[in-house]
Parts: sequence; structure tokens; C-alpha cells
Amino acid sequence: MIHPSAEVQTPNIGPETDVWQHTVILSGAVVGNQCNINAHCFVENDVVIGDRVTLKCGVYLWDGLRVENDVFIGPNATFTNDKYPRSRQHLSVYPRTVLGEGCSIGAGAVILCGLSIGRKAMIGAGSVVTHNVPEGELWAGNPARFVRKLQEDDKIS
Amino acid sequence: MIHPSAEVQTPNIGPETDVWQHTVILSGAVVGNQCNINAHCFVENDVVIGDRVTLKCGVYLWDGLRVENDVFIGPNATFTNDKYPRSRQHLSVYPRTVLGEGCSIGAGAVILCGLSIGRKAMIGAGSVVTHNVPEGELWAGNPARFVRKLQEDDKIS
Amino acid sequence: MIHPSAEVQTPNIGPETDVWQHTVILSGAVVGNQCNINAHCFVENDVVIGDRVTLKCGVYLWDGLRVENDVFIGPNATFTNDKYPRSRQHLSVYPRTVLGEGCSIGAGAVILCGLSIGRKAMIGAGSVVTHNVPEGELWAGNPARFVRKLQEDDKIS
Repeated sequence: MIHPSAEVQTPNIGPETDVWQHTVILSGAVVGNQCNINAHCFVENDVVIGDRVTLKCGVYLWDGLRVENDVFIGPNATFTNDKYPRSRQHLSVYPRTVLGEGCSIGAGAVILCGLSIGRKAMIGAGSVVTHNVPEGELWAGNPARFVRKLQEDDKIS
Repeated sequence: MIHPSAEVQTPNIGPETDVWQHTVILSGAVVGNQCNINAHCFVENDVVIGDRVTLKCGVYLWDGLRVENDVFIGPNATFTNDKYPRSRQHLSVYPRTVLGEGCSIGAGAVILCGLSIGRKAMIGAGSVVTHNVPEGELWAGNPARFVRKLQEDDKIS
Repeated sequence: MIHPSAEVQTPNIGPETDVWQHTVILSGAVVGNQCNINAHCFVENDVVIGDRVTLKCGVYLWDGLRVENDVFIGPNATFTNDKYPRSRQHLSVYPRTVLGEGCSIGAGAVILCGLSIGRKAMIGAGSVVTHNVPEGELWAGNPARFVRKLQEDDKIS
């Protein structure tokens, strides 16, 4: 289902992916299958999204983002692609930010660019991530710090 | 006034409530009267909103939210309904989050799920709320902590 | 380029300014030339935006905001215009918040009202700014604090 008010410019999108109201996906993006891309999102060109990924409302993905399979991105979670942004100054190459397979980015979290969030890791809501996060760990806070290893009851499996 | 670009699916909405551009309200939601729901909002199904409530832009309300009369929700204030969200794993029952009568949620604040914000309480802009907040108190920070009791000049009355 | 889904009510907007999908600009706003106003933004009436300003997605500018030339505002950066907001209680005069020439507001940062961000200053992503920021300084954190003076390699020139 692609809502009529959405603007999906890319032909590279899985047939069972849902795109909700007013979401915009530019022509160069690659989006997998069985994703759920909620209302009011924006996906730039140099972005690759795997299968079964969830984007909640207010998520904007910029050039350089790589989102692996089964990632959850909470509402208003925010990404960057320039460490020292200035108006109308563009980088020639954007840093690569990788959200590893099955990780979960909490609501309203901010992820600085050029970082990797490990497989199955979880970022607490409202955190600001300034370092790489290893797989299977929960990080939270501003700046985000290690909280604990995740267990089964964190829906790690 | 319901803007023509808004998509209000619910029949249960007060006649004097305004809904601005591109806002989406799903069919199961209940919305009171004399509310002001700004542009770029999203309201899911199992959500009840009282009378005279304000939602500023970029507010998304998920299943399980209860918003009492006269609540103010600032721009990009962010809510959750799953403590350990994973893509495509859904809870059978969503935790109840209650915003008490007349409370005020600051811009960009993040409210974890299953919590209550007390009557007339105020959450500072950019806070991350991880505990219940008693009525008439100002909380701020990440994680949010008690700052002080509110007074008349905080527009408590 | 003004995207057909945008709603630009003001006649006071520079001819080379781009406005992307679903963005709303009310009739009283003044917007300069060669700006880039991304998708899903909202600009109220008593707002003045200079030339060559960038607004990324999810930026909402309220009455009282003054944005000088060459300012960068990152995605989901959030502004306020009432220190103690309550639903349906409106100030007669909104505090003035000034974003100085060439400054940069990081992604997801929250700026309290009535403050000035100095010329060429930079606010780290996810910060909450509660004090005036002098020109040419980097501030970050919640609450935001002085980090260091900016240098050439921060793209200050």
C-alpha cells in the first residue's frame, strides 16, 4: 500500500512495503520488502533500507544512511550527515552511518553521523549517540552511554 | 476548520476542533471539542483526546495514549508505546500513558510509555521523562527530575 | 521551486527560494532569497528569515523567531515562544528569539525562547539551549554548555 498522498520517486522498493500519508522517498533510494514507512517521513537519494524495516512518523533519512534488515526507528528519531553543517556548504562525500540488523532506535533519539549501531543493539528514547554502539547492548542518555547487555525479555530474539 | 489536506477518519471529533494541514487522525480515535491540532500531526486509533487540547506540529500519538482536557503538547514532543520496540513485533496490549488535565509537555520532550503526567504538571522542553510526574510540579532534564512546585505565574491557574 | 503540495501563503518570499513537499508558510512570514526549505516544515506569521537559510525537515518556526542570513537549522530542531505554555492561553507579545548570521542549529536541538544564538555559533545535535550563546562558539549538551571556540575546520568561514 502506497498512500496516494505519498511521493515515492524510486522504482527500487519492495512490493509489500507500506508507505503512509505525505511521506517522500527520492529517486535514488533503495527500499526493501515488507517495510512499514509511516506518515510524514522523508528519504533522500543515497539511502539503502533493508527488508522488514519500520520507520515511525517524523523520521528523515539523509544521504549516507544504511539501514539493515529488521531495524526499528522510533518517531522523531533524528539523523545527520555532516559533523559541522553550514547553510549551503555541501560535503563531496557524506559519512556512512550504519544501523545494524535488527537494532532499535528509540523515539526522539539523535544519532551523529559516521557511526555504527551494532546488530540488535537498542538506543533509549531521547538519547544522543556520539560513539559507535556494539551489538546487543542498550545505550541511553545524552551523551548516550552503555547501560547493559540486552536479554531475551528485551525482545532480542 | 478541518483543512482539506488533513485526513480525519474518525467520526468522533468535536465540531469546534481545528485540524491543520496534512494531519492524519485514524478512525478509532476520539477527539474532544475546541481542540487545536496543528499541521503534520498523526493520531492512531486507541487514543482519546479531551476538550481544549493543543497539539503543536510534529506530535504523533500512538495507541494507548490518553490526553485529558486542556493539555498542551509542544512541537516535536514525542511519545512511545513499547518499552523495547523491535520491528514488526507488536504487543497484544499497549501500556497506558496518561497526560493529566491541564498539564503541559514542552517542545521536543520525550515521554516513555506507561507513565502518568499529573494534573497541571509541566515538562521542560527537551526533557526525557522516565518516571511518573506528580501534579503541579515542574520536571526537566534527561532524565527529567523534579525542579520545583509550580506557582500562579507559571500560568497554573 | 515551490512544490505543488506546499502551501506558501506569504507573497514575501525570494524568487530563488526552494520550498519542498507539504511545507506550510503562513501569510505574514517574510522569507529571503536562495533559501532551501525542506519538506514537512511550518512557518508561522511573525517570522523573518534572511537569505541563503536552510531549514531541514521537521522544523517549525513560531511567532517571534528571527533567522538571519546563512543560518542552518538541522532536522527536527525545535523552537518555542512561550516559557510556560498552557493550552489556549496566548501571550500578547511573543519573546524574540534570534538566530545570528551564519549560525548552525544541530539536528534535534531544542532552543528555549527569548534567546540569541550568536553569529557563526554552532549548537550540537540533540542539545537543549537555555542561555544565550556568544558568537563563534560551539555549545552542546542538555542543558547546553560551552564546548570550545570554533576554528576554520568547523567551516566557520
